[in-house]
Amino acid sequence: MYWSKLFIPTLREDPAEAEVASHRLLLRAGYIRQLAAGLYSYLFLAQRSILKITNIVREELDAIGAQEVYLPGLNPAEVWQESGRWDVMGDNLFRLKDRNGRALCLAMTHEEVMTYIARSELRSYKQLPQIWYQIQTKFRDEPRPKSGLLRVRQFIMKDSYTFDLTPAGLDEAYAKHDRAYRRIFDRCGLEYVVVEAHSGAMGGSQSHEFMVVSDAGEDFVVKGPDYAANLEKAVSVAKPPAAPDPEGELAPEEFHTPGQKTIAEVAAFTGLPETSQMKSLVMVAGGAVVLVLLRGDHQLSETKVASVTGASDVRTAHPEEIRQHFGADAGSLGPIGVTLRILADEALRGRRNMIAGANRNDYHLRHVTPGEDFACEFHDLRQVAEGDTSVVDGSPLTVHKTVEIGHIFKLGYKYSESMGLRVLDESGKEITPIMGSYGIGIERILCAAVELFHDKDGILMPPSIAPFTVVVTPINFADAAQNKTATGIYAALKAGGIDAILDDRDERPGVKFKDADLIGIPYRINVGKKVAQGMVEVVDRRTKISTDVAVAEAASYVQARLAEHTK
Amino acid sequence: MYWSKLFIPTLREDPAEAEVASHRLLLRAGYIRQLAAGLYSYLFLAQRSILKITNIVREELDAIGAQEVYLPGLNPAEVWQESGRWDVMGDNLFRLKDRNGRALCLAMTHEEVMTYIARSELRSYKQLPQIWYQIQTKFRDEPRPKSGLLRVRQFIMKDSYTFDLTPAGLDEAYAKHDRAYRRIFDRCGLEYVVVEAHSGAMGGSQSHEFMVVSDAGEDFVVKGPDYAANLEKAVSVAKPPAAPDPEGELAPEEFHTPGQKTIAEVAAFTGLPETSQMKSLVMVAGGAVVLVLLRGDHQLSETKVASVTGASDVRTAHPEEIRQHFGADAGSLGPIGVTLRILADEALRGRRNMIAGANRNDYHLRHVTPGEDFACEFHDLRQVAEGDTSVVDGSPLTVHKTVEIGHIFKLGYKYSESMGLRVLDESGKEITPIMGSYGIGIERILCAAVELFHDKDGILMPPSIAPFTVVVTPINFADAAQNKTATGIYAALKAGGIDAILDDRDERPGVKFKDADLIGIPYRINVGKKVAQGMVEVVDRRTKISTDVAVAEAASYVQARLAEHTK
Repeated sequence: MYWSKLFIPTLREDPAEAEVASHRLLLRAGYIRQLAAGLYSYLFLAQRSILKITNIVREELDAIGAQEVYLPGLNPAEVWQESGRWDVMGDNLFRLKDRNGRALCLAMTHEEVMTYIARSELRSYKQLPQIWYQIQTKFRDEPRPKSGLLRVRQFIMKDSYTFDLTPAGLDEAYAKHDRAYRRIFDRCGLEYVVVEAHSGAMGGSQSHEFMVVSDAGEDFVVKGPDYAANLEKAVSVAKPPAAPDPEGELAPEEFHTPGQKTIAEVAAFTGLPETSQMKSLVMVAGGAVVLVLLRGDHQLSETKVASVTGASDVRTAHPEEIRQHFGADAGSLGPIGVTLRILADEALRGRRNMIAGANRNDYHLRHVTPGEDFACEFHDLRQVAEGDTSVVDGSPLTVHKTVEIGHIFKLGYKYSESMGLRVLDESGKEITPIMGSYGIGIERILCAAVELFHDKDGILMPPSIAPFTVVVTPINFADAAQNKTATGIYAALKAGGIDAILDDRDERPGVKFKDADLIGIPYRINVGKKVAQGMVEVVDRRTKISTDVAVAEAASYVQARLAEHTK
Repeated sequence: MYWSKLFIPTLREDPAEAEVASHRLLLRAGYIRQLAAGLYSYLFLAQRSILKITNIVREELDAIGAQEVYLPGLNPAEVWQESGRWDVMGDNLFRLKDRNGRALCLAMTHEEVMTYIARSELRSYKQLPQIWYQIQTKFRDEPRPKSGLLRVRQFIMKDSYTFDLTPAGLDEAYAKHDRAYRRIFDRCGLEYVVVEAHSGAMGGSQSHEFMVVSDAGEDFVVKGPDYAANLEKAVSVAKPPAAPDPEGELAPEEFHTPGQKTIAEVAAFTGLPETSQMKSLVMVAGGAVVLVLLRGDHQLSETKVASVTGASDVRTAHPEEIRQHFGADAGSLGPIGVTLRILADEALRGRRNMIAGANRNDYHLRHVTPGEDFACEFHDLRQVAEGDTSVVDGSPLTVHKTVEIGHIFKLGYKYSESMGLRVLDESGKEITPIMGSYGIGIERILCAAVELFHDKDGILMPPSIAPFTVVVTPINFADAAQNKTATGIYAALKAGGIDAILDDRDERPGVKFKDADLIGIPYRINVGKKVAQGMVEVVDRRTKISTDVAVAEAASYVQARLAEHTK
């Protein structure tokens, strides 16, 4: 294609509204424009990249035997009511009524419709296993759309769903998706980690997320040399307390702490480190009030509380609930004399003579020992903190912000049971198939590539998903020799199956170079005065290294460089 | 692919709810399933055909220099309010509110968003012309969803929009689309007619529809050897009156016609044919009451009344409006003594001494002559009727039901003016670009193919858009020789780039043949006992002719047959 005919509205300045790199650069490089909060128009460049991404996704899903379908984005309320998600999804679900007053919603995923089809059509064990997928627009009434395409109200998703007779069958479908996802993200040129994730309280048994480390992300991942997990799920060996516990069989002893409520305040007041305190958190898990104890410097993982209690809903207790059960307010709470279920984090196991609240406002206790002064259950309840070490090999763990690009999930029987999907087994008995669901955010791949690979001049797009792979840039297209050479190289590239663009614009070379760099075209072939010597320059966008190459070899030279990328 | 692994839920019986062929056969052959009224899930087979169709559409649009984009389906109300369509679209537009109470709609086309982008980004004549398109899901709150995928509430559309500096530029963009559309429909194997269509009252200047003749359609097209037009727009030479008019300068003469209101009743009562009567229709065009006169046997084209009066809104007058202006009721109305504007159809020009209502209930007049007994304007106001002849060459015209598969439309300045799109011309003066819009219904192509090409056994899908091109059908896959031959031919077909499927199911041959015929796979290669003689049978789905072919030549034989299709 000839650049002069195309609509590529690059901007000279960074757009003021954009904070994260992908938002800023996709706007500036003319890939996207905002229509309304969380709603973006994908212009020519973005759509080219998205088509390349979806082709890769389609090829790899087809390769594991997944069958592509396309389901309505507009769903009748009834199927969502059957699964229970009509209520659970709350304001996140876009809801509307048709001209006859019937309730509809815009689907954000398709477990319901897939299960509806399976229930209507699958009768026998002979028809299983099945893997069905689609690449489709989803809608979600995101409360705070932001960060360009990272948090939006409409997005493209590859979602697959598997139906198996046995948990072993689900394991295989899950493993197939894991392999396909790795191939997809590898082919898209991304660097990513695969982390264990929380499976949710509603019947899921295993779940992994594919994450790209980026400050633009809003998820947290814990990483070690041989370990990676979602922060909510990650486990660790806590770094040791900053000071040893007092020795001896000491009895709890109340002391006055006027106005000292936070862990930091009590630490300063007592002169003891935060690690010497027990943090008391009152939670309501599935309707039951529980007291959760952590070491003073640790943070709670609500997800772990949900796992331990089996509750689908965990929240902090309200002040009046706290007063009712403790006779005191937050800031002075502790485990002694409490009749509630007490969950203590593993980091408190074996600790002695610690500081805790006295359940009397403005008082604390010293010399509180778990298991002696009060009864409790020990569980892993905390989030991993910087300085913790790996349970696998003791090496240090670090916490990173990440962008989720994929998620694989063993759903179990949640949808097949709630929606009544049953087939006959070999003996003619009715059984309930087991399901998995698997998602990839298509635009997330584009954004993650930009977040991972950019510099001060713009995007360094991986060749497999760049809107164009090579730009041929005549310094002066009006010059007959340059024109002839540039169009010749362009034709040779196209003939070689390379997605090339010819920058035929009547612009200064600097403008053309800047635009190509901003957009992130992996290779640029400058056709200038060296044409007289039969040479052109090939510039690698990533390294900025320019190499003089003979005109006749320019196309094959670039082809060879591209082949190195896909090794 | 191996059939046994796929989800192809064919039905033994015709589904009761389906009336038209495409609905019945797409359900029965397992292409689609209904989720709710006007909302269909596209299963594996439909999605395969749709991907082939969209690839053809994409290639041909790219070939005319159109740039693919992808715009939000969820639109803020504001852009639709700017164009005025927020009100005009009424109940056809799905409307909703987000969690903050802001009004949104689900776009049925994208003139607004395209113009919004153009207005924000285009500044100079140098940036024009532009052709932007997308292939995207649209939503429309259809009042009476029916006929399977023909009248639905969600559908896939290729919509393009052009921006030009001059009407001549628009002519060129329009011609490019006309050519691309013909190539697309040709490549999809369809038979179609291109007809002049009404351009609408809102600024459009030219419009053509691409129509497939089918009883499943709800549009009407008038065809002659050298003529084709939408019924609302078509012109003709009326067939002559069934009886000559009485001669002489006769004065109008009232006669009593008790209870005789319709044209047919008055014809029977007077013993004169319907062609001897004037039909009086009272219409309200743009708020003004007009009397429209037609020959008794003709039907009104409201579109033509709109064109003649320049009104965007034409309706039949209410009974009280009629009584107010005529002092009589429908059934006894006529032109004499009326002070309204009178529009007479061309078929009344030169007629004499006809029958008309007397504007007195239960009375008519004989000997009424247009131009003598009352003043009127003559215009083409009627629909073409069977028996009319072509204005081009006098040959007979026929009226057909059709399905619209594409529409190209010169929008003119409607959106660029209402939404304030302006660019600077060469002299630095602001000018308003002129626009076109162009649509193809993707599922309509699939449906039209089925409507055009089916027999009692199922679908005869054109090879270019069939979900599979060839099925290799071993009569008994458990037989070692058949298994080896079938898998070998399958591999040879795949190696030759032919989209083949291997029917490895443990089913009776009859079941396999029936399913393949139902689905419409263009070629079937039966691998049976003749394998012992080195032969297989190639069956052409359209002709049902079976040809014995040597095993080694089976793949190339099919390839040669397919090449004939694309000639």
